[in-house]
This record gives sequence, structure tokens and C-alpha cells, in this order.
Amino acid sequence: MIVVKVGGSEGINYEAVAKDAAELWKSGQRLILVHGGSSETNKIAEALGHPPQFLTHPGGLTSRLTDRKTLEIFEMVYCGLVNKRIVELLQREGVNAVGLSGLDGRIFEGKRKEAVKYLENGKIKIHRGDYTGSVERVNTALLTLLLEAGYLPVLTPPAVSYQGEAINTDGDTAAAMLATAFKAEALLLLSNVPGLLANFPDESSLIQEIPAARVNDPQYMSVAQGRMKKKVLGAVEAVQGGVGRVVFGDARIENPISAALAGRGTVVR
Amino acid sequence: MIVVKVGGSEGINYEAVAKDAAELWKSGQRLILVHGGSSETNKIAEALGHPPQFLTHPGGLTSRLTDRKTLEIFEMVYCGLVNKRIVELLQREGVNAVGLSGLDGRIFEGKRKEAVKYLENGKIKIHRGDYTGSVERVNTALLTLLLEAGYLPVLTPPAVSYQGEAINTDGDTAAAMLATAFKAEALLLLSNVPGLLANFPDESSLIQEIPAARVNDPQYMSVAQGRMKKKVLGAVEAVQGGVGRVVFGDARIENPISAALAGRGTVVR
Repeated sequence: MIVVKVGGSEGINYEAVAKDAAELWKSGQRLILVHGGSSETNKIAEALGHPPQFLTHPGGLTSRLTDRKTLEIFEMVYCGLVNKRIVELLQREGVNAVGLSGLDGRIFEGKRKEAVKYLENGKIKIHRGDYTGSVERVNTALLTLLLEAGYLPVLTPPAVSYQGEAINTDGDTAAAMLATAFKAEALLLLSNVPGLLANFPDESSLIQEIPAARVNDPQYMSVAQGRMKKKVLGAVEAVQGGVGRVVFGDARIENPISAALAGRGTVVR
Repeated sequence: MIVVKVGGSEGINYEAVAKDAAELWKSGQRLILVHGGSSETNKIAEALGHPPQFLTHPGGLTSRLTDRKTLEIFEMVYCGLVNKRIVELLQREGVNAVGLSGLDGRIFEGKRKEAVKYLENGKIKIHRGDYTGSVERVNTALLTLLLEAGYLPVLTPPAVSYQGEAINTDGDTAAAMLATAFKAEALLLLSNVPGLLANFPDESSLIQEIPAARVNDPQYMSVAQGRMKKKVLGAVEAVQGGVGRVVFGDARIENPISAALAGRGTVVR
């Protein structure tokens, strides 16, 4: 089993992802796709007069403020526009894909974080009424049922809270939980950069490999700041949880999945 | 098995539909939900600067002109906004719902009608490049798999063409195909009116029953014009195809499903 997460930034080559996934699938490779949709969500939110707002948390990370209206726009783009685009591309390639959100069949389940701490002018404040949370459980039974019947699952946030509410959740983390639950041979995190970059956005500074056991060495941690630190630690956690390897790869190129499987990008193992 | 189609006009009480569906489901009633989303699609399309256009066909019926951009908006609203709203409401009621479009697993499959005839100033013209079509096949195997594993399917257009393209399709017809494929005991078509009205929109003119065998009697056909004629003939076809009864009911009231099952609305049998 391989889990492929396709990010939601500008420049993703969805046609190439679908074509490559279809070829691998037809050759007998079991796989599950997970995708994002953040840049298109921002555009649609602007167009609908409800522009995106981001909160900066005390740890330095940022996240989307997800009120009810934002959640609806999020669902429109992730579950409607992007999910069905990928399912359609796979259907055109002759692969019987099934697109599902984490709400459907409680595929991605976790705790809602209704109150979110954030920084404003250096002070910690609390935003209430947010629809966000982290995935803690994956419904592998439903996914196995679909896989064994020949369907390729295409998954997307939101997740579902234990109370049944839709919650915005980080797609990379959800994909890592999924890969860990299946003890996947590989988790590929594809985005619009060639991998992890020592000097972002300098693409020639690609880090080719991070040995999970040596992630705390200064040469790795000095480059892993902010969101990238979270990515690296997430990858290490997946490897420690039984995932064969994690590859940060490029989703803008032809054959993006095969390239990442072949080690193009940043490999964590 | 009962198939419940919830229309997409203004005034639908989604909370009541979900609550009623959950109670029936928990009491052991097998059911599948199908829904629309036309009025919200119109609003979002307007807000996004791509207002809806409708074609009037030579037979007098109208349909949504579905170019690629319209298809994307359609998918955002039907598959994102409305589908996930209903799935979330069911999850909150403790029912493990799974929301799927006709693209997913090729649940609703049919022929794309790329060229559509329409009337303009009394002349027949042809619009090309449309993403529409009619459902000809239903993937009952996938739905049975889900039902037997305890999941309540919540289905929505678009359908998928034999070539794998997304196609806008009539929800009532898709629901009727589904009910026929399952030889459902009842197909409930719920909307924002109490049933079929002899003098639309006079709600006191509700037609309580149409015997399928006598549908061509003048007393029934004189009131069944245009879109309503299509609805009546669709219902008769479903009954002739093995569906126990078709009820046109009200989705604005409390317990809308139970009420229609109990015969409130227009019953075709």
C-alpha cells in the first residue's frame, strides 16, 4: 500500500497525478490518494466575499480560521471542486475511483478544537466557535472494503468530530495517520516544490535524505523551522509508526508519483 | 428498501429530513437518500459571476446549460455544500452516512449529451459542449456493499458518462432508476410543495392519488403539463418497473419521510 497526498497549492498537475496513479493502480499497486485545496479555497472565499483569515498560534504555526461559513466554502472546494476533479480524471483513465471526505463513514475522526489560542499584537487570545481538530482515528475497515472491491479511494478533509461535526483538519497529518494505520510501504507528500528545501524557496537547496534516527542532528533541525519542522517531525513519526518511508516530492511534474517512489525529492526513512 | 429524494429548492428542512431518516434507519429501515441543490447552485453561480443559464427544449422542458465552469460550480454545491451538510446532520444523529456522487464508483452512469437542442426566438438551435446526460445504469453492487456494512448512502448528481466525464443529470430520474434497480417498496420525491398540485401553486389543490394504470385519464393528464408531466410519467414508469409506490411529499415539514410513507402527499401506485 502507498498513500499519496497531493497538496492544494498553485501549480499542482492534477492530470499527471491521475495518469500516474492510474498506471500504478492498473499494474496492481494498492494506493489511496489524499488531497488538499487551500489555494482554491482562498480564491473562492474571496470571490464569495468571505476572505480567508489565518490565526498565528503561540508556537508560531498558522491555521485557517474556520467559522461555519468558512467550513461551507472549504467543503465546496475540497469535497466538491477538487475531489470530484480528481475522481473524474481517474474515471477518464479507466480507474473506478471513489471520492470521500473524512465525514463520510467517519473515515477521519478526531476531537474538535472549538477554542483556538492565537497571537494578536504579542498577546495570547482565544477564538471560539472554530470548526477544526486533529485526526486521531482512521476507518480502515471501510477503506479496506472499498479497496478489496476494486475502488481507489480519493480522500479529503474535513474530518468528523466524535460528536459528528465537520472539522477542518491538516491534510498532511491525516495522510500520515492513514499511512500509519495501513503500515504503508510509502507515504508520498507531493506539493509545488521539489521536496524540503534548506533555503526556501531555492529549489537547488533540496535536502535529498533525512534519516529518521538522526532528525535531531543540527544539520537537519537547523533548516527545519516553522511549518517545515512540523512536516519533518510528522514524517519521522510516520516512519517510527511503521511506514516504510516518507517522500516529499514534486506534484508539478510528469509521473509525480513514480518519481517520488523512485526517490526523487526528500526521503525520510 | 426506500429511496428518498430531497429536492434542491428553497425551504427544504434538511434538519427534519436527517432526523427522520436517522430514526427510520435506527429502527431497521433500509434507505438511500438522493438530493438536489439547484437553488443554492443558482445563488453561488451568481455570486461567482457565472449566472445560471437555462435552455428551453423543443418539447417545452428547460434544463441548466452546463458548460465546464457551470459543472464545477454544480459540483461545489451539490457534492460539497449540500452533500456534506446532509452527511454531517446524519453523523450528528449517530448515523454513519457516506456521501457519494454518481461519479464515485460510477454509481450513476449514462450517456453524455454533448449537443443539446434548444429554442431561441422560435427556432431550434444546437448548443455544443454541454456536460449533461441521463442515468442508464446504477452501481447497485457498491451501494449494497455499503448498506450491508451499515453505511447510509447519500447520493447526488453529477453522473458519469461511459467515457468517464462528469455529467449533470436530473436527480428525480436518477432516484427513480435507483429505486427501480432495488425494486424499492417506496420512492419518495420530497420538495417544497405538499405534492402534485392541480392548480400550481395553490396548495389546496393537492392531488392525493394517481393510479398508475389510469394515468392517461383526462382528469390526471389535464393537470400534468410540462415539468409536472415528466414527474408523473417518471413515477408511473418507476411503478411499472417494480417500485411499490411513488409519493410526492413535502420536505418543509417535521418528519417529512414518515409523513410521505404514511401517504401524505400525492401517491402514485
